[in-house]
Amino acid sequence: MNSAVSTLRAILNPRSVAVIGASGDPAKFGGRVMHFLVKHGYRGRIVPVHPTAAEVLSIPAIPKLATGDPVDVCILALPAALLPAALEDCGRAGARGAVVITADFAETGAAGAARQDALVQIARSHDMRLIGPNCLGYINPHLQLALTSSVALAVEPMPRGAIGLASQSGSLMASLISHAQDLGAGFSVAATVGNQADVELCDLVEYFIEDDNTRAICLYIEGLNDGARFLALAQRARAAGKPILAVKAGRSAAGQQVTQSHTASLAGSYAVWEAACRDHGVCLLDDPEALIYCADFLIRFGAPTASSVAVMSPSGGTVAVTGDRVVAAGLTLAEPGAATVAELRKLLPPGRTINPLDVGGLPRTSGLDSALTAYELLAKDPAVGAILIAVATTPQLEDKVRQWGSAALAGSKPTALLLTPGTLVDGARNALKKIACPYTNRLDDTLRVLRAAVEYGEALRNPPPPASPSSFIAALCAHAAALPDGRLTEPETKTLLRTCGIHTTDDVLAATPDAAIEQAQRIGYPVVLKGVCRDLVHKSDAGAVKLNIADASALQIAWQDIARGLSAHLPGATLAGCVVQPMIRGGTELIVGCRWDPQFGAVVIMGCGGVLVEILNDVQMAIAPISAAHAKRLIERLRIAPVLAGARGRPPADINALADAISKLSTMAAALGPRLTELDINPLLVHESGNGVIALDARATLAASTP
Amino acid sequence: MNSAVSTLRAILNPRSVAVIGASGDPAKFGGRVMHFLVKHGYRGRIVPVHPTAAEVLSIPAIPKLATGDPVDVCILALPAALLPAALEDCGRAGARGAVVITADFAETGAAGAARQDALVQIARSHDMRLIGPNCLGYINPHLQLALTSSVALAVEPMPRGAIGLASQSGSLMASLISHAQDLGAGFSVAATVGNQADVELCDLVEYFIEDDNTRAICLYIEGLNDGARFLALAQRARAAGKPILAVKAGRSAAGQQVTQSHTASLAGSYAVWEAACRDHGVCLLDDPEALIYCADFLIRFGAPTASSVAVMSPSGGTVAVTGDRVVAAGLTLAEPGAATVAELRKLLPPGRTINPLDVGGLPRTSGLDSALTAYELLAKDPAVGAILIAVATTPQLEDKVRQWGSAALAGSKPTALLLTPGTLVDGARNALKKIACPYTNRLDDTLRVLRAAVEYGEALRNPPPPASPSSFIAALCAHAAALPDGRLTEPETKTLLRTCGIHTTDDVLAATPDAAIEQAQRIGYPVVLKGVCRDLVHKSDAGAVKLNIADASALQIAWQDIARGLSAHLPGATLAGCVVQPMIRGGTELIVGCRWDPQFGAVVIMGCGGVLVEILNDVQMAIAPISAAHAKRLIERLRIAPVLAGARGRPPADINALADAISKLSTMAAALGPRLTELDINPLLVHESGNGVIALDARATLAASTP
Repeated sequence: MNSAVSTLRAILNPRSVAVIGASGDPAKFGGRVMHFLVKHGYRGRIVPVHPTAAEVLSIPAIPKLATGDPVDVCILALPAALLPAALEDCGRAGARGAVVITADFAETGAAGAARQDALVQIARSHDMRLIGPNCLGYINPHLQLALTSSVALAVEPMPRGAIGLASQSGSLMASLISHAQDLGAGFSVAATVGNQADVELCDLVEYFIEDDNTRAICLYIEGLNDGARFLALAQRARAAGKPILAVKAGRSAAGQQVTQSHTASLAGSYAVWEAACRDHGVCLLDDPEALIYCADFLIRFGAPTASSVAVMSPSGGTVAVTGDRVVAAGLTLAEPGAATVAELRKLLPPGRTINPLDVGGLPRTSGLDSALTAYELLAKDPAVGAILIAVATTPQLEDKVRQWGSAALAGSKPTALLLTPGTLVDGARNALKKIACPYTNRLDDTLRVLRAAVEYGEALRNPPPPASPSSFIAALCAHAAALPDGRLTEPETKTLLRTCGIHTTDDVLAATPDAAIEQAQRIGYPVVLKGVCRDLVHKSDAGAVKLNIADASALQIAWQDIARGLSAHLPGATLAGCVVQPMIRGGTELIVGCRWDPQFGAVVIMGCGGVLVEILNDVQMAIAPISAAHAKRLIERLRIAPVLAGARGRPPADINALADAISKLSTMAAALGPRLTELDINPLLVHESGNGVIALDARATLAASTP
Repeated sequence: MNSAVSTLRAILNPRSVAVIGASGDPAKFGGRVMHFLVKHGYRGRIVPVHPTAAEVLSIPAIPKLATGDPVDVCILALPAALLPAALEDCGRAGARGAVVITADFAETGAAGAARQDALVQIARSHDMRLIGPNCLGYINPHLQLALTSSVALAVEPMPRGAIGLASQSGSLMASLISHAQDLGAGFSVAATVGNQADVELCDLVEYFIEDDNTRAICLYIEGLNDGARFLALAQRARAAGKPILAVKAGRSAAGQQVTQSHTASLAGSYAVWEAACRDHGVCLLDDPEALIYCADFLIRFGAPTASSVAVMSPSGGTVAVTGDRVVAAGLTLAEPGAATVAELRKLLPPGRTINPLDVGGLPRTSGLDSALTAYELLAKDPAVGAILIAVATTPQLEDKVRQWGSAALAGSKPTALLLTPGTLVDGARNALKKIACPYTNRLDDTLRVLRAAVEYGEALRNPPPPASPSSFIAALCAHAAALPDGRLTEPETKTLLRTCGIHTTDDVLAATPDAAIEQAQRIGYPVVLKGVCRDLVHKSDAGAVKLNIADASALQIAWQDIARGLSAHLPGATLAGCVVQPMIRGGTELIVGCRWDPQFGAVVIMGCGGVLVEILNDVQMAIAPISAAHAKRLIERLRIAPVLAGARGRPPADINALADAISKLSTMAAALGPRLTELDINPLLVHESGNGVIALDARATLAASTP
């Protein structure tokens, strides 16, 4: 355990806590903290700090923390102006950590950010960790410790369990505590980190990975301070068998603006997030409360070992609707084996489907047993990865639910119980809670649970193939060092590509029309003529791309057109010359590129090109570098994958060469790091299988070299 | 009110009911029915029918219904074998209706279907309506009448309200009753129709339209007996201001199989359903329980008069996530006007976004008022169609929620309150229930409510432009009458199209290569040569389409190729000849067609053509006939609409001509009815704006003329 983790461990498992701004009034932050500390029975030492009171809630208070008898953690609920001095006191007294609830820091702008930095400096000067500001503290139910002002703690008991929660929102933590209570699930620690001025989400993830009480990690994220660290931790969590489930705010432009004003978080690109999470086995959910459902399910059942699901219900209507929704959610209905089907047929009236399975109105003679037998038959079938039981009103409901739940917990098949009616079936809910069997109340959540579990199982079984070392990196870096900062021209970009072994047209800059004509004669007409000008971003918009030039006189005219177009488009810009390229037809046009992402570093992107780009938004990405085998997975996930594979009698495209080019570009992106701001090959023409790929056009931007 | 409706009215509002198979044992169907009748306090006459008992639950029983003193409705929960005789008794005694709970009829196969038909015959012979079989009866809370064996009725009181529910599933009715109870919503009548042997969903829709107690209509549908009747009723419901909300099972193949085995329902094409519902203002939902949420919301608030929504919450994290989800759900975030923004800014800390709006931690001096003021500012802004308040834990939660709810009910802006935490905030839920303000517990449902309300509002404001009469119908019908049954050839199909004024290539069948060469010379090379053979479905697969033929000798070779290809592909088939067409380049290829749908009749379909068909599944459809203005709406909904409109500097396509062709084809489909099984124009080439469209290829199948 490294020292940062052991410090956090001391803070989250304190022997003593001080409440700076303690009060007996539950309408105040410091009052609620005191009340919850006492109410939930924290057995460590509680030190209320109050300028005048002799005691708070019958606990002796002190006006100021003393040195020599340090508390492990202080919680501060004070007006912002009083914070620096109070934090100094905590530090001088030797506290390991300070939790700052007060808001109005970086989230309100530059002045707040400066105040926040000042707090961090104070904490660092005393070797003290700072949680917050703009947070709601944390709970450690295993210690009966509620170090928070959240009104969620008004309800007893604190839900103790194996979920480690780290949230940038205090209010969402409260909602999740409430849902855990309702379900009979619970937390090892649930903590809020607010603006992440010092202690950040990744610190908690690392703590949870090493914490024996934690079996699943839930995160509500507005922004990450260090994406690479997060991914490294995700790998460790996977190795430790602890699933990470995350909700990330800022998928929309509106959401991104809110993360800034809420916790001063830069949301980053959600698409990059999605790609990173998928490749690193992090279950990305769209709904905070569903974190609890999914984590609880994975803790109790583990990940499914097959990806198809079986659906059963005692209601025919529910069976039909649930089957529809399972398919619409992108899950696959399992096909049970012949033996399972034969056994089920013995129980069922004629005409019934096997999956989804209507177990309503089974012959009375088999009574309750048949509903249980049906479950057990599905559960022991290896083709079934998980089972969804949609519980609707039916006679003997509670008994059936108890039997299904017990069988699910005793067996090895992950089973999601859904109770669709309202409070009418609370008896069945309580029966499940009593045996600690997870359930959901809405099909939306059941589907989230099953999808997360299936995806996590797949991620465990199929981690992305690692990228292997490349031989071209030294030459590439030397070449890039010699290139100018800023926008590269098409020929410059293509030399960079060729350094990595990516095939491009063999462009040579022609300074005059005559030189271009000479080149065209060597290549053979028809040719393409393109103007080269460093300041020109979109060549087509300036009319600087002329296709299908048939002869020398047409080339002369084209050159003049390009020169005129450039002057009109970018007055004062200099035409450095033109490049002549062969007119290549056929093949499939893709876009392949890379970006430097401020959170995750180098990212490789690929998708379909041409007019389809805007309609399909058919794009896949991954954190670079990736292997060719990994690149193939991206290609397979494209919507145009069937076209590339040779749909409707078309010849298959050279997917091996495409994957190789993507992998090489990703290696380049990772090797050049922040120096390569972005690079786009558009189009990369993919020929028929065996005939390779060729970059027809490309552009790139280099950042100023780091000094 | 027509007589069918008045009969149903008598059955659903009976003065007297008989329970055939009455029992005092609540474990039996007839026992539960008796218990619920008594328990809920039905004040009409209850007549238990039992072969031997003198009384059931202290109510005098009779062994057999007597004539001369008819009950309005009988409910039968008997073994199938006893049903025919018992139903005869009901009919002879003069009952207006019989409710048959017993299952094992058409849903189990042909023998069951015959038994079911026999029941219907008995009912009809006595002029008695039959509800079921395989149903769970109904409730009429306005009469305190529970004529059902559903265990949902174990809970009191029956939820009385303005929702009319008709369900093919008894279990789903039970779940919906439970949810209505939890929300404080209720029913005018909730009825199950099971196999719809006689009384069907549309009968109930018609009843609800005319019923003063009903203000919104909810349907759970597995299959419709008469799609055209449903659409006519949808129009009446819209005129009556009563929204119809429906869940339709059978969206997936799996779901379709279940509807067959559950209620012997033919699910039909879900895509046609979606199109029909959208055009007729029916809100199609994917979740049964959400029917209650959406109906309750529309009853209390009516439809929004603008389509954009505002989001507010006292939790920053919830604001961010909710904003993301609203956008992901396809809803639009409203942009409040400058005056609203200026007023809001006075309340807010710096940096906050306006929509979604974080109303947490507003200055203490404004206390509760500021949270209410923020709501009222948004509510009075005309750019805001509806408001979503995501309630998270916050101090003074109940007071705030009560104020928001009261303001929502008192004002004119539809407002969806979402309470994300669990039982922790049940106090706030009860506060809303007490003032009869709708709310939801999960964002999924809130989004369903808002989407349904917004879509319903749009449907009210923008009904599809009606199709106007066409002049070509008489000529078309005469022409079609002269065509053979079965598959038409390409030239035959094109003559049909030209009859309606749809532009096609002007094909003349050439019987010999020489005749073809003569035509080609007239048209001008290059040309297209296509084999014509009635038995050939897919010309391309047989190599019967030769493009880009440059001269007479190439045409000779192409003809021989076509002849050889046909022999190889379809041994024994006769090549009737070939057609010669000009080689037309450019334009955008679409597919336009029509189908005869067994539930809804003639349907017109259009979508993008070529290789994109399989990748995009970019298809729109409508029940025929439709006007050109309506066809334009279909075109605008295509994903390739931006390409047709002229994206990225492309010339815009001739959308007017395309819409006109679609409208004409739809008119043809409606006019020819079931005679035209299907017709596909593939491709229909759409030229640049002003240059029209042309059908390059087409095929059709005619059903045997109805005698």
